[in-house]
Amino acid sequence: MTHIYNFSAGPAVLPKEVLAQAAAEMQDWHGSGMSVMEMSHRGPEFISIYQQAVADLRELLAVPANYKILFLQGGGLGENAIIPMNLAGLAAQQPATVDFVHTGSWSGKSIQEAAKYANVNVAASSRAARFTGVPPVAEWQLTPGAAYLHICTNETIDGVEFQQAPDVPAGTTIVADMSSHILSRVIDVSQYGVIFGGAQKNIGPAGLTVVIVREDLLGKALPICPSAFDWTIVAEHESMYNTPPTYGIYIAGLVFQWLKRQGGVAAMEQRNIEKAALLYAALDADDFYQNRVEPAYRSRMTIPFYLRDESLNDAFLAGAKQRGLLQLKGHKSVGGMRASIYNAMPIEGVQALVNYLNEFAGR
Amino acid sequence: MTHIYNFSAGPAVLPKEVLAQAAAEMQDWHGSGMSVMEMSHRGPEFISIYQQAVADLRELLAVPANYKILFLQGGGLGENAIIPMNLAGLAAQQPATVDFVHTGSWSGKSIQEAAKYANVNVAASSRAARFTGVPPVAEWQLTPGAAYLHICTNETIDGVEFQQAPDVPAGTTIVADMSSHILSRVIDVSQYGVIFGGAQKNIGPAGLTVVIVREDLLGKALPICPSAFDWTIVAEHESMYNTPPTYGIYIAGLVFQWLKRQGGVAAMEQRNIEKAALLYAALDADDFYQNRVEPAYRSRMTIPFYLRDESLNDAFLAGAKQRGLLQLKGHKSVGGMRASIYNAMPIEGVQALVNYLNEFAGR
Repeated sequence: MTHIYNFSAGPAVLPKEVLAQAAAEMQDWHGSGMSVMEMSHRGPEFISIYQQAVADLRELLAVPANYKILFLQGGGLGENAIIPMNLAGLAAQQPATVDFVHTGSWSGKSIQEAAKYANVNVAASSRAARFTGVPPVAEWQLTPGAAYLHICTNETIDGVEFQQAPDVPAGTTIVADMSSHILSRVIDVSQYGVIFGGAQKNIGPAGLTVVIVREDLLGKALPICPSAFDWTIVAEHESMYNTPPTYGIYIAGLVFQWLKRQGGVAAMEQRNIEKAALLYAALDADDFYQNRVEPAYRSRMTIPFYLRDESLNDAFLAGAKQRGLLQLKGHKSVGGMRASIYNAMPIEGVQALVNYLNEFAGR
Repeated sequence: MTHIYNFSAGPAVLPKEVLAQAAAEMQDWHGSGMSVMEMSHRGPEFISIYQQAVADLRELLAVPANYKILFLQGGGLGENAIIPMNLAGLAAQQPATVDFVHTGSWSGKSIQEAAKYANVNVAASSRAARFTGVPPVAEWQLTPGAAYLHICTNETIDGVEFQQAPDVPAGTTIVADMSSHILSRVIDVSQYGVIFGGAQKNIGPAGLTVVIVREDLLGKALPICPSAFDWTIVAEHESMYNTPPTYGIYIAGLVFQWLKRQGGVAAMEQRNIEKAALLYAALDADDFYQNRVEPAYRSRMTIPFYLRDESLNDAFLAGAKQRGLLQLKGHKSVGGMRASIYNAMPIEGVQALVNYLNEFAGR
């Protein structure tokens, strides 16, 4: 059989070693006689899995001690409501104002949802530039006393990535949607108030949401915030106020251990830089393909591109599939192609895609 | 190794055949080259898994065509908020009143959470009787024009089960929390407006929530309802408005197929009647053990019991564990023991427990 490389934007490719271990342990975890799926979340076996996952994520991202790591449900779209429900109370005046920077589809969805719970100020937008970059921070119109500033640090659909935390005035609480690039590069967690992401891109299976929140931001939830999504309650109960997505946490834990074996996030970042450079070089070689994002904001993880002659799209996808290069079709809202090259995508997969790009372009 | 029987209340035992199939398919689902965890939820492979799961659940419970089957996240505790957010708008007057029957810990939690979104009327309560039964329906003080009536048809912690849908006045919309006995007995779905449950007891892994809702109840969500939990939006998007818990849906689908191979819900109900009769007979044989629930409301699924001499609790649990009888400790709020004997618990497991009960009692 052809070697398969899966470029899905999420749920996405997982490390082969992780899947092999999950298969081997499915029917009996460590001699317990139980599958991880069958364990009480309050039993010693699962508690050990949970604690190891939290400790490993804390180590991988160097999460400071004054941040809580929470495992929730509902994904990024759920958090779009859960965040203002938890944080609108931080604003200097009520009703709260929340600032957003609009850099693509995902920040757009966050803006729409937050408007149910707070006044929304779009401090900057790259919509006029068709979401091909990030407006200069100096031009952002931030609201004094806003509850927080929400940014999406990697726009999955548009392929726009913040290369560092924005240099905003001291005291600004940044809430960062890192769903599609968390653990792909070294970050300084202390520059953010909240980091969150759906797991199904760089962490594990769909249905698990990771929230990293600075402790002083807790305790401000609106009265309408459901208890199961009230970060303060969830933190007090070590993510076990309701039954957590236990199997998702287990798989995420296996991914964290795999990342540590790879040398951690810094080593992974070097590989991601190489992988992205290889792919962008093939896209830029001539004008057969096109990535429209400004070079300074090009994503290393989610790389949209277009064929100059879009009538060839179907032939391109069919040929890719024949070669085992799967799920390259772009998001329906923007068309074209997209290659998601998350941590678990080996450089061999990117090379296989590059070979096909060159072949299809007749180079 | 001793044969293991896992009596956990949830996450709980799964059919061995299901776990074996999941292990075999973990690294390559049906020759796709992908794990189910790696599939885009919008790709043809996962769509086929989703559609089969919905169709099988519809067949197993004979869900009428005018009911939607939704796959959500957040569990029963999440739904305690999500339900009033979706249904409070049905009340004749606003602010809405919601009726509850309080029969144990879970309905108690539902009452507490709903009070954030509506006026709560406890139409009946068995609290004075220490949650050992269900108050007679004739005595329920229902509110004219209430948005709905919420009941928990199997109280997991207290072991109290409704043996049929309550005979309430026509036009009453019953919302039933069936988390811990769904698919264990034949029900008439048309007697309910909404049936919901966390999957982690009788359906599959934690992190998946199943909601079955009559279509005419949709379209009334409060403006503060998060989009990801707005049943109308979720139904319009076939449970794919946000990324669903794909692997949980896959495992649930395998459980549904296993149930069909067992002869469906009616056949399963006969086995559950036998299993429960066997266990209650051992508990009732003399006064060494005690189940305090009125016989007419004894649960077939979740069976709490106490040792007459509670100083023997630790010895009982230690001996059980030695014999491979796991997770028999009762919920911390009520103490004692609890045997959850869900669909996936074979009668051999119940017999092994009964043998131990007799042995420990010195019979």
